[in-house]
Formats: sequence, structure tokens, C-alpha cells
Amino acid sequence: MATQKLLLLPGDGIGPEVMAEVKRLIDWLNAQGIAHFETEQGLVGGAAYDASKQSITDATMATAQAADAIIFGAVGGPKWDSVPYEARPEAGLLRLRKDLGLFANLRPAVCYPALADASSLKREVVEGLDIMIVRELTGGVYFGEPKTIADLGNGQKRAIDTQVYDTYEIERIARVAFDLARKRRNKLTSMEKRNVMKSGVLWNEVVTQVHAREYKDVTLEHQLADSGGMNLVKSPKAFDVIVTDNLFGDMLSDIAAMLTGSLGMLPSASLGEVDVKSKKRKSLFEPVHGSAPDIAGKGLANPIAMIASFGMALRYSFDMGALADKVDAAIAAVLASGLRTADIKSEGTKAASTTQMGEAILKEL
Amino acid sequence: MATQKLLLLPGDGIGPEVMAEVKRLIDWLNAQGIAHFETEQGLVGGAAYDASKQSITDATMATAQAADAIIFGAVGGPKWDSVPYEARPEAGLLRLRKDLGLFANLRPAVCYPALADASSLKREVVEGLDIMIVRELTGGVYFGEPKTIADLGNGQKRAIDTQVYDTYEIERIARVAFDLARKRRNKLTSMEKRNVMKSGVLWNEVVTQVHAREYKDVTLEHQLADSGGMNLVKSPKAFDVIVTDNLFGDMLSDIAAMLTGSLGMLPSASLGEVDVKSKKRKSLFEPVHGSAPDIAGKGLANPIAMIASFGMALRYSFDMGALADKVDAAIAAVLASGLRTADIKSEGTKAASTTQMGEAILKEL
Ligand SMILES: CC(C)[C@H](C(=O)O)[C@@H](O)C(=O)O
Ligand SMILES: CC(C)[C@H](C(=O)O)[C@@H](O)C(=O)O
Repeated sequence: MATQKLLLLPGDGIGPEVMAEVKRLIDWLNAQGIAHFETEQGLVGGAAYDASKQSITDATMATAQAADAIIFGAVGGPKWDSVPYEARPEAGLLRLRKDLGLFANLRPAVCYPALADASSLKREVVEGLDIMIVRELTGGVYFGEPKTIADLGNGQKRAIDTQVYDTYEIERIARVAFDLARKRRNKLTSMEKRNVMKSGVLWNEVVTQVHAREYKDVTLEHQLADSGGMNLVKSPKAFDVIVTDNLFGDMLSDIAAMLTGSLGMLPSASLGEVDVKSKKRKSLFEPVHGSAPDIAGKGLANPIAMIASFGMALRYSFDMGALADKVDAAIAAVLASGLRTADIKSEGTKAASTTQMGEAILKEL
Repeated sequence: MATQKLLLLPGDGIGPEVMAEVKRLIDWLNAQGIAHFETEQGLVGGAAYDASKQSITDATMATAQAADAIIFGAVGGPKWDSVPYEARPEAGLLRLRKDLGLFANLRPAVCYPALADASSLKREVVEGLDIMIVRELTGGVYFGEPKTIADLGNGQKRAIDTQVYDTYEIERIARVAFDLARKRRNKLTSMEKRNVMKSGVLWNEVVTQVHAREYKDVTLEHQLADSGGMNLVKSPKAFDVIVTDNLFGDMLSDIAAMLTGSLGMLPSASLGEVDVKSKKRKSLFEPVHGSAPDIAGKGLANPIAMIASFGMALRYSFDMGALADKVDAAIAAVLASGLRTADIKSEGTKAASTTQMGEAILKEL
């Protein structure tokens, strides 16, 4: 069995706690001989800043470049609110995404039946929801230059951010989204603001071309990002796969996650291009939720999103789809048994700590 | 009684139908001697394009500059999907906003008790909701330069949009929002993406300064726009006034509107700076909903958002707060009586056409 190199980056807040549950799972898979993962652990975000005044070091970046997959917890917290902009916790995550070329961010929004009542939406609106948001992750306003604050004198400053998209960036993310749609319900919705933004005009044009050239069998629909957001809140089940840019994807995927009532449950995958020679792609897996500093260190965090993110790693980076299915089934079984961390607790269910939840999922496996 | 000059711009789709109900109301106010409005009607959007190949003409812009208030319907529709970018229907609206300096967009999101069940959210989450989104309307990525698509050769294009914010633009919109909060529940939430955008950093800094200097009595809170959007979906009633930039405001206000289940009911006001000499400000009032081309011309449109927008004109441009209250009360009374246009129809209510709804509100007055 080939050895697979994993870099674990727990980060800040509840990151280390939920990562510990993935570590438990990895150790078990190794001990059982089901897989052979070699893990290394690194610092990112505030934790890295405290140690090195940088949100990620060049040494950790080198390890990340060499890893077969990165498992990422969460970064940030009020403790680092006043560190210099370039060293803020989020910068570590953004550097990983950019330097590793992780352009395709897959964010499933699934409503677990056992949790349908936890949503602020009506049960019938979200029950059975299973959509996939594909967010472009290395372009747009996140990385475009100029990105500056200039002093104009007289107490006036001018801040500038730049949204840049090239044809090839839109083409490759569109292909990822169309391919996913083909494996699902065969429908893709592309969202932009072409009525206001030139990048929206190009986005619309390129997605339309890729569709006409390569994916005529998939149903393609275009929506403006504002009314698309509305529709997501009104009737989320009308969607299958949604493809959108970095900033709209940031907003829309958070909203979609919240709709499901399962924020502490949702994983994400960030993928690079497939290397022609090695057939491998760089990849990073992280929960959709953040570092939740308010509950950190209390054993209250829900490890399911983190474990499900590792499940996505099995599926997308290690071609272990069957094992990934088992992980998902174990999560569903534990939920069905009534075990709940604090974030998803409801009447008649059994309370579990982070560790108890992790152990229960492992036992189910 | 002073004569007040109104420019009516019905626009496209259902715009003319809903505007007709405002016209009915204006005629009645004039006939009763309650007010003296002088109205002029103009073309904007696709309607203007069909007549002049421009989405608004210089002549109409001159009338707009001279008007005491502009009442705007809606623009756009598939008919104009392939007109040149510069002449697309939305360009007329954007030119009005920019040239008249309408920097402050007020978008109340109110859940009418009679309609709480129309929301996709649970009744208890939205019942009694009354929040105000204050959106910056003349800056940011909507108007920043460069805004271009360049041909890079080899089938590659590069699209660029630029988000620009100066200190004074953030200061003046913050003041509008703080002033509104003072008249409401005294709480302001500012939203940006300071962890990714320099404009977010400046936005956060300036709002914090304005607060410390002039509005210490108002509770100020900062949220990232993505998690803020989440919170809006999770517990909208936790908010009072939200202030945010042009693009985030576009997304968040549409989502907030949808939460209420009252999309066809929500008005908006766009205001300029108060002129030192005349004490007047330029202003435009429009429904939050769009042109809904699919139901245009069928008498199905809900005129309430348009009538309520005219109510906002009475309040914000003509200092007729008492009359505005009466308009709002008439709308609430008609809803309570069970009359409903198709968009808000539910079991046990009485169906009304656009005209029947407009007439009923007038009768109530
Ligand atoms: C932490 C932050 C930089 C990040 C983003 O804005 O992309 C987060 O919100 C996300 O969605 O992964
Ligand atoms: C029509 C369009 C240009 C406009 C906008 O994006 O501002 C609309 O969505 C709005 O919110 O008023």
C-alpha cells in the first residue's frame, strides 16, 4: 500500500479540538491496515503568528507543497484583531490557496434529515436539500492588484480592491462544475452580476461557451447573484450545482450552509489542477465553519464537519470513494442514534462532547 | 401650498402597471387639496432604449435634476439581453444614482404580520421583523475605474472591475445609518470583508471613528459580510440597522427582503446630500422588486411596494410624515381585510388585481 502524506493544520480556536478527532480516525485507519497515512502537523493562522510573527512560514509552505493532501481546521479570533494586515490569521489560508493553485472550492450544502428542524427555514423548504456550490478560489477581488490604501491628505484615504478574471480561470472552474453536475442531477446555475460588473459579463460569456462546446447534455441556467441569493433562500431545492466567483461564492456558500441548519456539519474541498504527468492534484480540506473562539477549549465543538472534510479527502485525493461513503454513513448513523453536540442539540437527543462524538463515529466505522 | 415636482419613471415590465396605482393616489391627493404635486413622466431602461437607443436621455436626466423627487418603477427584461453593455436597461438607473449623487439607499425589511407565513423561514424567526439596510449606492465596484474587458489574444480575455472607497464616502453613509439607528432601536451593524479587502479595512476604520466622535450613544457592532449574511438568515431579528457597501448591500438587502416573505411589498429610498442653501436633497424612490417580465401586462403585479415607495417620498422628501403614516396604515388595513395580489395569495384570502389593490388602498385612505 502506497504511503500518503498528510499535512494537518489545526489552526486556531476549535481547530485543534476537531482536528484531534480526525487524527484519531487516521490512527485507526493506519492501525487497521486500511490505509497508510503519514501525518505531519504544522502551524497556521494566529497560532503561527504567535510562534513566528507570520500567519504561515515558508517551511510550512514547503511541507504543504510536498503533501498529498492538507487537512485544515480554522483560523482567526479576536486575539489577533490588531496584528498587521499582512500577518493576519486569514493570510495564511489565502497563501495556501493561492500558492498551491487551489482554484476549485467545492462546498456541498446538505440538510441531514435528523437536523431539518435546526434550520431557521421551514422543514419542507430544506428537507432533503443536497446542493453543491462550486466557488472559484484563487482569483477575483481576493487577489487582484492594486489592493491598497493610499493617504490622500486632509484626513482622506482611498482604498482600492481589484476584481480580475481571465478567460482560462473561468473555463477551468466551469469545467469542474459541469463535471460535478453530470454526476449529480445534471443542472448547473451560474451566478454573477453581469448587469453591473465587466467580470460578470466575461463570466457569463465563458460559461456559456464552455457549455455549448463541451457540456450540451447539462442544463445551464444563469442568474444574477443578488436574485440568485434570493432564490437560494426562497427555494434552495430548485438548485443542483451552483458555480460562482470567489467573493459571491464566499457569501452564497455561507448562506447555503446556514439554510441547512447543519453549519457545524459541512465540509469543503479545495482542489488544484490535475498534473498531466503525475495525474495528481494539490488539495486542501476544511470545514465550512470558522474557529468559533467563544467555545474553543470547552469540548463543545462539533467535529463532524472536520471529519466529513477528511472524508472528502479520501474521495477526491486518494480515490477511496468506498471508504468515504463509509465515513459518511457512520456520521449519519451516529446522528440517527440521537447523539448531538451542543450546536445541534434538541429535545430528546443525547448530549455529546467533541471527543464523544468523534469516538462514536469511529466505533460506527 | 407649495408645488412639488415629481418625475415618474415607470420603466419596464410591471413598472407601468404599478406606477399607475401611484398616479391614482397622487391625482387623489391633488384633487383633495392635501398636496399639490406636479407630475411629469419619462422613459428609462428598455423603454427608453426602444425609443432612443439609450437607457436614459440627457433630456430626461435634466428633468430628473430639476425634480423634487423621482418615483421609479423597475427596469430590464430578456427583450434587451443583447443590447450593447453601455445601453442596457440598468445603465439608466445607475446613471440616475450616480449623476444625482444618491449615495444613501434605505431598504427597510419588514415582515407584515398578515404575511409571516409567506416566508420560507419559520414564522417565529421572521414575525415582527423590522430592520433597515442602509446601502452605499454611488461608490464601490459599481462605478470604480478601470472597468474593462481587454483582449489578450489566443482566445483569452481579461475582465477588470475596481472597488474604490474614499473616507468621505464612508463617513457620510455611516452618518445616515447612525441617524436612522437613533430614531429606531439604537443599534448599528456594519458589514464588510476586512479580512480580505482593503476597502473593508478602511470601511471598518472610518465607521469606528465616526462612532467614537459623534455617535457614542448608539451601539455599534462589526460583522464580516459572509457571516453577517449567515446571521441574517439565522436570526434576522437580532439586527436593527445594517450599513454596508454597494455590492454587499445589493446582495444582503435582496436576501433580507426575501426573508420577510413580502418581496412585492418592500419600498426603498435613495437619497443625496442635503444642500446647505436650499436644505433640499435629491431623491429617488423605487420598489425593491424588479420588472418581473413574466407577469407584466396581466394585472397580476402587487402595487404595494410601489405605493409604499411613494410613502417614503412623502416622509423623506416632502416632510409629510403624518400622511406617510396614513399610507402605511392603509396598506396594513387592506392586508388585514384579506385582500391579496397573486404573489401573496394564500388560503382563505380574497384575490385582487393590481388595480383592485390600488383602489382598495386609496379607499382606505
Ligand atoms: C477566512 C476567510 C479569509 C475565508 C474567505 O473569505 O474565503 C472564509 O470566509 C471562507 O469562506 O473560507
Ligand atoms: C438593477 C440593478 C443594476 C440594481 C443593482 O444592482 O443595484 C438592482 O439589483 C438593485 O438592487 O437596485
